[in-house]
Amino acid sequence: MSPTITAFAVSPDRGQGLARDMRVRWALEEVGQPYDVRLLSFAEMKEPAHLARHPFGQIPTYEEDGLVLFETGAIVLHIAERHAGLLPEEANERARAIGWMFAALSTVEPPILEFANAMLLETLKPWSKERLPLVMDRVHARLKPLSARLGGADWLEGAFSAGDLMMVHTLQRLKPSGLLDGYPNLSAYVARGEARAPFKRAFAAQLDVFNASSAS
Amino acid sequence: MSPTITAFAVSPDRGQGLARDMRVRWALEEVGQPYDVRLLSFAEMKEPAHLARHPFGQIPTYEEDGLVLFETGAIVLHIAERHAGLLPEEANERARAIGWMFAALSTVEPPILEFANAMLLETLKPWSKERLPLVMDRVHARLKPLSARLGGADWLEGAFSAGDLMMVHTLQRLKPSGLLDGYPNLSAYVARGEARAPFKRAFAAQLDVFNASSAS
Repeated sequence: MSPTITAFAVSPDRGQGLARDMRVRWALEEVGQPYDVRLLSFAEMKEPAHLARHPFGQIPTYEEDGLVLFETGAIVLHIAERHAGLLPEEANERARAIGWMFAALSTVEPPILEFANAMLLETLKPWSKERLPLVMDRVHARLKPLSARLGGADWLEGAFSAGDLMMVHTLQRLKPSGLLDGYPNLSAYVARGEARAPFKRAFAAQLDVFNASSAS
Repeated sequence: MSPTITAFAVSPDRGQGLARDMRVRWALEEVGQPYDVRLLSFAEMKEPAHLARHPFGQIPTYEEDGLVLFETGAIVLHIAERHAGLLPEEANERARAIGWMFAALSTVEPPILEFANAMLLETLKPWSKERLPLVMDRVHARLKPLSARLGGADWLEGAFSAGDLMMVHTLQRLKPSGLLDGYPNLSAYVARGEARAPFKRAFAAQLDVFNASSAS
């Protein structure tokens, strides 16, 4: 039986692929696992049926054989542990690849989300212009050491892993801001992720959903 | 051989136990694994020797038998996977407990860190007073559904797990702010974590480090 994930019926990013179902779709494409999608409106995400799946009323979730899982990181890890292709076999290398998943979510993403909040939710506030450089400094405080660590390598830790998947998608949110421009190796890293066939299939799948919603 | 973790030589919270080495100490105490600690000054955290361990120059790290790991979440997961006591045996329950680890780090902690930044780094800024309610709303947007999901249960998913360990320590940072006061079940949940003997041992160990540093 194929797993079922949830995603936005109408993605707020208009099909740019920034919603987190993209991470799960990409992981499933990397391991070659077909999946079904249950699309949810914003109202449906806050209804009891979905809150039973996801206590915070968000997407994505993952359902398979009696397991109901929420949190993108946990879902991607679950997929990576049960299929070949997203984590190294050797125990120490595997632990380090999982480490990069947590680094993406717990160290790199929080200042990027704070920056996104500043841009999306506070742009009309009187403090917006004066505060933005502070927030951008917090993003650079992560990008600079990340760029230094990646150096000239293709991926963060040997072969492409679930850690790269999470990091590339985390960094993608910065592309329109120009904040990546000072880090050519990070821009190339993101482009390398986007050039993977599984990424492209996942991206096309989420864009199809948005295009269908805006055509109807 | 016991693992070696890194921690602040002089904790900026003056021994309140809010630094992230506390999470690793607590996990090691829960599973009964002795450990060594390498204490680092702020300057040492940014030197090449430590940047090789942790690209972002932070604590904690974890070293054991040729494995060098960074990211608290990855370290706690590594410990939980190799010892009994922090994750259920049954596969689906185990996946859900890991899900709560990610929920703590990826859903609940980011607005709490944004609130901490607003209180610590922006409190003298002209926008501080007007902006704070916005930031607090983002914290409540996580606490309210978390409180609803926990309900009258002792722990988030059956028995105490690594998910509870991460969530309790994430919520602890809010205690002085009073933001937890509207959620008696979350306050009781944090107190329940703090009442565990392994938590107490971990807390005492990090407090000893701070007391020794301030006595010298």
